[in-house]
Amino acid sequence: MARLRVHGFALSLDGFGAGPAQNLDHPLGLGGMALHNWQFNTRTFQRMLGLKGGETGIDDDFVARGLENIGAWIIGRNMFTPERGPWLDENWKGWWGDNPPYHVPVFVLTHHPRPAIEMEGGSVFHFVTEGIHAALDMARQSAQGKDVRLGGGVSLLRQYLEAQLIDEMHLAVVPALLGKGEHLFTGIALPKLGYQQLEHCTTPNAMHVVLKRL
Amino acid sequence: MARLRVHGFALSLDGFGAGPAQNLDHPLGLGGMALHNWQFNTRTFQRMLGLKGGETGIDDDFVARGLENIGAWIIGRNMFTPERGPWLDENWKGWWGDNPPYHVPVFVLTHHPRPAIEMEGGSVFHFVTEGIHAALDMARQSAQGKDVRLGGGVSLLRQYLEAQLIDEMHLAVVPALLGKGEHLFTGIALPKLGYQQLEHCTTPNAMHVVLKRL
Repeated sequence: MARLRVHGFALSLDGFGAGPAQNLDHPLGLGGMALHNWQFNTRTFQRMLGLKGGETGIDDDFVARGLENIGAWIIGRNMFTPERGPWLDENWKGWWGDNPPYHVPVFVLTHHPRPAIEMEGGSVFHFVTEGIHAALDMARQSAQGKDVRLGGGVSLLRQYLEAQLIDEMHLAVVPALLGKGEHLFTGIALPKLGYQQLEHCTTPNAMHVVLKRL
Repeated sequence: MARLRVHGFALSLDGFGAGPAQNLDHPLGLGGMALHNWQFNTRTFQRMLGLKGGETGIDDDFVARGLENIGAWIIGRNMFTPERGPWLDENWKGWWGDNPPYHVPVFVLTHHPRPAIEMEGGSVFHFVTEGIHAALDMARQSAQGKDVRLGGGVSLLRQYLEAQLIDEMHLAVVPALLGKGEHLFTGIALPKLGYQQLEHCTTPNAMHVVLKRL
């Protein structure tokens, strides 16, 4: 069966996966950009932006792994928009412009229904109101034998972790302090849920760790 | 004025500074030994045990830094003994044998008074019941111009952090999952308390980070 995978999820030194007070100028919350310094300069990330150059090496390898064999994505509504509550601005089609970097179906978990949006380059945003299990079922069907990548945010990761539905999770622990924001692991006993840390390596920018559910 | 410094405090991937259920066989709590794999094989640590050999390099440099210019230590009572409540076993003189690795006065914070214990090699355990400020005053006086090192545990670190009394803090984030235990930073907004991350580097065993209060 298609696996549910998390890749490139960054965690601050003090345990936060996103900053507080997300808005249009701060899609990752205040201070949240510091979580992703490890990947901005990688060759794979630069290519996703349509640019040339960028660095190869371990950080880049981890970014590239996150794109391998992915047939669908699941993201939380706050990953799609800074708006909360009912959809007011139907012109908003995500942070990524006309050609988002997914190129596969993306299932957006929300409490507020909205018709699917087909973008250039193969990304289609489907809005799912039936909860995390339904979203995973739909994503698996759409993935056509490939895996499903879970993008975040923190709240959605916590729900899927607690439901023991994540098969593999790559975290990048970074030397940044956020002070407040969304805490990833508080109250979640990973070993009890079956997760083990199976792989790790460090670069100047991050400690990379891969957890798997056995 | 003598600074209050923390060195070599290890933090699991999921944010724990010690495992749960400390007892005589598990001075660092269940699973807590995994927090310290990064330092066991260093030359400085091996020397503290009276052994030869051990590895040099960045991990070793951090262990060595923690011993420089230290005139006194402060530790929590649980760092000294697995016993809780009133002192019943007056023969217990710490985990470290007759010649503990401190070689300076050590102020042990406790709710239960006990006469000081003078050990071989210069370590003297003083038991302080008047709280964290009093312990710091006493330690500074004893340190004779040198700095004071705060050893832990987690609860004591949290108290000194929240009181904004720690000047410098070296953390080693390690690729281990504890699942439960004592969480170091939950509810503590480090930047708001004046702490900034000023230095970091990674080794195969840990991400080393130095926080300072500015």
